[in-house]
Amino acid sequence: MLTDIEISHNAQLKPITEIAENLGLLPTELVTHGEAKAKVNLSILERLKDSPKGKMVIVTAVTPTPYGEGKTVTSIGLTQGLQKLGFKACACLRQPSMGPIFGIKGGAAGGGYAQVVPMEELNFHLTGDIHAVSSAHNLAAAAIDARLHHEQRLGEKEFKRQSELKPLHIDPQKVLWKRVVDHNDRSLREITVGQGDINGPQHSSSFDITAASELMAILALSKNLQDMRKRIGKVHLALDKFGSPITAEMLGVAGAMTAIMAEAIKPTLMQTLSGAPCFIHAGPFANIAHGNSSIIADNIALGLADIVVTEGGFGSDMGFEKYCNIKVPQAGKVPDAAVLVVTLKALKANGVLVNDSETKSVEHQALESGYENLRWHILNIIQYGIPVVVAINKFATDNDDEIEWLKSKSLQDGAFACEVSEAFAKGDQGAEQLAKEVIKATKEQNKFKTLYDNEMGLEAKLSTLVELGYGASGVELSETAKKQLNEIKLLAYDHLPICMAKTPLSISHNPELKGAPKNFIIPIKEFRLNAGAGFITAIAGNVMTMPGLGVKPAYLNIDVNEEGHIVGVS
Amino acid sequence: MLTDIEISHNAQLKPITEIAENLGLLPTELVTHGEAKAKVNLSILERLKDSPKGKMVIVTAVTPTPYGEGKTVTSIGLTQGLQKLGFKACACLRQPSMGPIFGIKGGAAGGGYAQVVPMEELNFHLTGDIHAVSSAHNLAAAAIDARLHHEQRLGEKEFKRQSELKPLHIDPQKVLWKRVVDHNDRSLREITVGQGDINGPQHSSSFDITAASELMAILALSKNLQDMRKRIGKVHLALDKFGSPITAEMLGVAGAMTAIMAEAIKPTLMQTLSGAPCFIHAGPFANIAHGNSSIIADNIALGLADIVVTEGGFGSDMGFEKYCNIKVPQAGKVPDAAVLVVTLKALKANGVLVNDSETKSVEHQALESGYENLRWHILNIIQYGIPVVVAINKFATDNDDEIEWLKSKSLQDGAFACEVSEAFAKGDQGAEQLAKEVIKATKEQNKFKTLYDNEMGLEAKLSTLVELGYGASGVELSETAKKQLNEIKLLAYDHLPICMAKTPLSISHNPELKGAPKNFIIPIKEFRLNAGAGFITAIAGNVMTMPGLGVKPAYLNIDVNEEGHIVGVS
Repeated sequence: MLTDIEISHNAQLKPITEIAENLGLLPTELVTHGEAKAKVNLSILERLKDSPKGKMVIVTAVTPTPYGEGKTVTSIGLTQGLQKLGFKACACLRQPSMGPIFGIKGGAAGGGYAQVVPMEELNFHLTGDIHAVSSAHNLAAAAIDARLHHEQRLGEKEFKRQSELKPLHIDPQKVLWKRVVDHNDRSLREITVGQGDINGPQHSSSFDITAASELMAILALSKNLQDMRKRIGKVHLALDKFGSPITAEMLGVAGAMTAIMAEAIKPTLMQTLSGAPCFIHAGPFANIAHGNSSIIADNIALGLADIVVTEGGFGSDMGFEKYCNIKVPQAGKVPDAAVLVVTLKALKANGVLVNDSETKSVEHQALESGYENLRWHILNIIQYGIPVVVAINKFATDNDDEIEWLKSKSLQDGAFACEVSEAFAKGDQGAEQLAKEVIKATKEQNKFKTLYDNEMGLEAKLSTLVELGYGASGVELSETAKKQLNEIKLLAYDHLPICMAKTPLSISHNPELKGAPKNFIIPIKEFRLNAGAGFITAIAGNVMTMPGLGVKPAYLNIDVNEEGHIVGVS
Repeated sequence: MLTDIEISHNAQLKPITEIAENLGLLPTELVTHGEAKAKVNLSILERLKDSPKGKMVIVTAVTPTPYGEGKTVTSIGLTQGLQKLGFKACACLRQPSMGPIFGIKGGAAGGGYAQVVPMEELNFHLTGDIHAVSSAHNLAAAAIDARLHHEQRLGEKEFKRQSELKPLHIDPQKVLWKRVVDHNDRSLREITVGQGDINGPQHSSSFDITAASELMAILALSKNLQDMRKRIGKVHLALDKFGSPITAEMLGVAGAMTAIMAEAIKPTLMQTLSGAPCFIHAGPFANIAHGNSSIIADNIALGLADIVVTEGGFGSDMGFEKYCNIKVPQAGKVPDAAVLVVTLKALKANGVLVNDSETKSVEHQALESGYENLRWHILNIIQYGIPVVVAINKFATDNDDEIEWLKSKSLQDGAFACEVSEAFAKGDQGAEQLAKEVIKATKEQNKFKTLYDNEMGLEAKLSTLVELGYGASGVELSETAKKQLNEIKLLAYDHLPICMAKTPLSISHNPELKGAPKNFIIPIKEFRLNAGAGFITAIAGNVMTMPGLGVKPAYLNIDVNEEGHIVGVS
């Protein structure tokens, strides 16, 4: 079989204007970026306001393993399969981050014959949205430090005279807004800025990866440009010397930040290998970020297509949880079904070998034990009130008996259906059966509900989230976290939903705990208020909001060839 | 008169495909980005290889003052004026940096009726080139720190086993490669990275503004993608513990850096208000960076147009010097004429008031004294062997007698011509006369020569540059600089040209010295080897490669309006 990038290069793409026309977009609603990408003007939101809405399917997965589960492959394959069945289907995916591309994971365009193409245009820059988020974010960081500098340097009176602005009295030790870069850069996790005689005040700081910026969550959750403008105005940049928040609006930088993101708010239309439409918008990293595609992209797709396939990052405890408890209440559109992606290999890696039987093979033991993880995710999705279709992302070497065993177990545990997907090797054809089951699932009566009510107190929401959402016994707050929780209450932000930044490698906060861990308590190191995005993040355990490059990073294999094509991205 | 952004919004733009067709580009050579921008595929370089080449005009200015001289306005106006005379004219300008847009200067699209439009698309992101440079640059920074981290953490033997790579033994105190961001962010000038137990090794570092990245100079000076790939491989990232350089090639990151910049190497075509074509490529900041448009854009324009107008940043001691001594020898195409932009206001601000006469008005005294600066720039350009046309960027309030006086003085001092430009207020019409004089100048016999021969020793080149190029008596090297000069010699890079990062506010290194300073010695703090771009930079005086935001930054005025348009950019 050809490599992903070879398949992408060999693909006969349709002009993106044709993809757009087939989906029902008007030429005036498109801003083409080359032959294969187009941004969509938000004027369409008004046009589609009263149009009938399609069905919404959210794709999630079991707890990830180093082998990958193929969630994006399955999302794209399913969209292609639905299209093959004659439905007007559209995928809504997130823009890949450059961090994993040069780190370990590689690109995020799917793979095999279930790809968004051209994959290198998707993986590198796309139409610049992530760069715009970095730029807007870092302008605010520069602005807050510059204001600190000038107020300190000039003194209150002289600062007022020169600037004609009211002094903000920012506390240099309480700058909450970090900087961001879209790379895995470990050495920027803890830094000191403002050193030297004329660059101060000096203070500790940090860089996050751009996907984890509150602005990325704002991009995902905004309903239109004016909504984004308002949300950006609300972000908390720092505290003043009296402990009161300094927002982007107060610093006068919110307008400029919005201007930088004025193009980024328009979703980008691309196509899959079978010519199905696909909107790309907002960013990944559902462990440390919101990690879901945008409400705007969803709303456009729902207004044009019969069925929309979107994806929440990592397992159903991560992107799916944030989708259900944060995005759905803001979006207003509930999901009609969930697809839970699994591979035999991933389940076995999630298993814990137990030598309790001579008759069972080691492989089957691993599968049985790993199945506990799949069951947990099935039950997790069911508690949100929507039907769950288990999708087995099949490899050529998979054992048919094991697949049958898995199907029967899943159904027994309440899955609406369990179907194999061979989209990687066979494209749209390989996902037809899965597509049929998904269509059936979306016709079920919808009983979607969030895990908790936002009107509950913060502690109650947190307990509910960790107990129902992760199966934990409770939480343990650090002293810092306790203080922050009180501050959030004092600022009257306790009506916001609460989510977690934690390892995606376990349902718990501890990456070592495989399967379906029980009887654990989640330590919360700190809380971060996202006043503009509209949620609170609890930082669990030692999770870091800036990844690092590994010993053998993927950048070693990436280059341009003689024809000027990018090679070495998978 | 309307504001710049109102004029830009009201403009009736032609489709960029029409601009391209008029210039002689083939549809297959274009990658359109919306209606008003298109990247140009480099396949065109092969097609134009043997075509006749147009004339080249470089626009420079007197020493800048807070009032601005209107160099970009004049470059665009001149292109429009040439077009009005019936010539196929094309401008080659640099992409604006976001630093000045949110800082003090504002946008860089020209102004009035001499603008590149749409100005907000030019000023914000354009087609993402500066973002790509930032991203490629910061990947290398992350890669070098990650390599340091893993080699130190694992030890030589275990690092080799896990990575299958040869250890590089980088000296953490000799990481030469900084990080970059396209903002004015003073607090990132001196920082410490790699703090905390698991993020090390800790070391001092710094951010430059992206325009000052060596990768931006490489973008400007590369002849094609493969040339850029080779140059990126050569950049020095660090020294190892034995003092030998670690290049991007040795770290295995040069291919990935090139992949990130694979689209950025294609120039972007836009249009002026009169529909003249304009290529935008590479970055500004001719004080601390190369600060000239790209050789690739120039070559495309020269192969298609009768006459090409490009711009070197700041006074003729800055961008123009780098253009003549670095870009021209690499490009192979010498300039046919120079345009030297001046305003009465700027000259007066460059003047020093002397109360030696009761009969002369204060204004005229300032003008006479300020004229010394203009004369210096006229003579400076003449020594490069090309005719210089002085362009007086005229304001409605300018005194006609003063203009006549300036004309006669300029001609007396050797200017080929001196003509008024009213492009700001009158567009193409306002620059017709100037265009006529420029055409005449390009027909003169071309005697272009660089200031020095690259085969001269480094010290000799440096002395020549400061004596002939700035009128200094000599240089004084710091101990660091002396050591660095020796290291550059040991590495056998002494054949490279040498240029200076210095204040643009004086011909000297001292911003206080107005007019045409004499008898000064330039202190050199350090040398930076740009092995990939192919030049050495001497850091003069206290110049900083990262600007800061002022007390009353321009971002305060920038916002999006109800219709989603960006407002407040000038």
